[in-house]
Amino acid sequence: MIVLGIDPGLSLTGWGVVDAKDRNNIIPLNYGCITTHSKQPLIKRLQDINEQLQSIIDEYRPQNAAIEELFFSKEAKSIASVCQARGAIVLTMALNKIALFEYNPRTIKMSLTGYGSADKYQMQHMVKTLLRLKEIPQPDDAGDALAIAMCHISISFK
Amino acid sequence: MIVLGIDPGLSLTGWGVVDAKDRNNIIPLNYGCITTHSKQPLIKRLQDINEQLQSIIDEYRPQNAAIEELFFSKEAKSIASVCQARGAIVLTMALNKIALFEYNPRTIKMSLTGYGSADKYQMQHMVKTLLRLKEIPQPDDAGDALAIAMCHISISFK
Repeated sequence: MIVLGIDPGLSLTGWGVVDAKDRNNIIPLNYGCITTHSKQPLIKRLQDINEQLQSIIDEYRPQNAAIEELFFSKEAKSIASVCQARGAIVLTMALNKIALFEYNPRTIKMSLTGYGSADKYQMQHMVKTLLRLKEIPQPDDAGDALAIAMCHISISFK
Repeated sequence: MIVLGIDPGLSLTGWGVVDAKDRNNIIPLNYGCITTHSKQPLIKRLQDINEQLQSIIDEYRPQNAAIEELFFSKEAKSIASVCQARGAIVLTMALNKIALFEYNPRTIKMSLTGYGSADKYQMQHMVKTLLRLKEIPQPDDAGDALAIAMCHISISFK
């Protein structure tokens, strides 16, 4: 199963694609970040996110996508910004008929480290170890996206 | 010029299409509301909004679209909900190569009533009068969408 993990943001959207034969055999195919510039109008930024995601989808043909559930610890402006990117991303999955799954941060941490309150370093370390990467994925958002994809695999193959 | 006005929402998105030869000659082509059900998953709701907007675009072929600028008087959960719908709507315009314009509430009120603090009743009344409608458009969100479209026309033909 090929899974696309996404960490949505208007300026920076992390993504990671993994291929899993089973929950213990996960191969990282690629990961990275989609960036858009704050000087561009919103419509151009959402179109850029859509186009870059579309290239990733066309290249790796994921069957499932996974994103973090929304949580509301941030200020209104930052919520609005993330959520507009998230809406465009979710629609892009729909237009490509990719099943989308949402996981809350605690579930993602639990599935990777066995500990629902794991810190950022523990998570990055587990992503690196489980995917047998030489280094911690950079930027952090790409690592977060890989973690979300791996959480989905762990739960799907339960 | 055919203009699609949109009042975004996850449960209820108002829309209105008007055709303007000039700023004093505006014909309402159609208006209404797109509704989605809160029991459906987000991806299905955004896809429903996209599909229904697509039918409206295919039928009326608007050259321009207009939406209200974001403002942040609401609570986080409601901002997140509106903004995810807004992101999907903005992307739908981009995918259809429709130029999108954003107006703040004060500009919309000013352009219709000449008074930036006009109340809801004044706005509804002006929409009805300027479009020579027999009744105030219902639901309110459809009337709001028509007001946004008319604001764009008023500013475009200045």
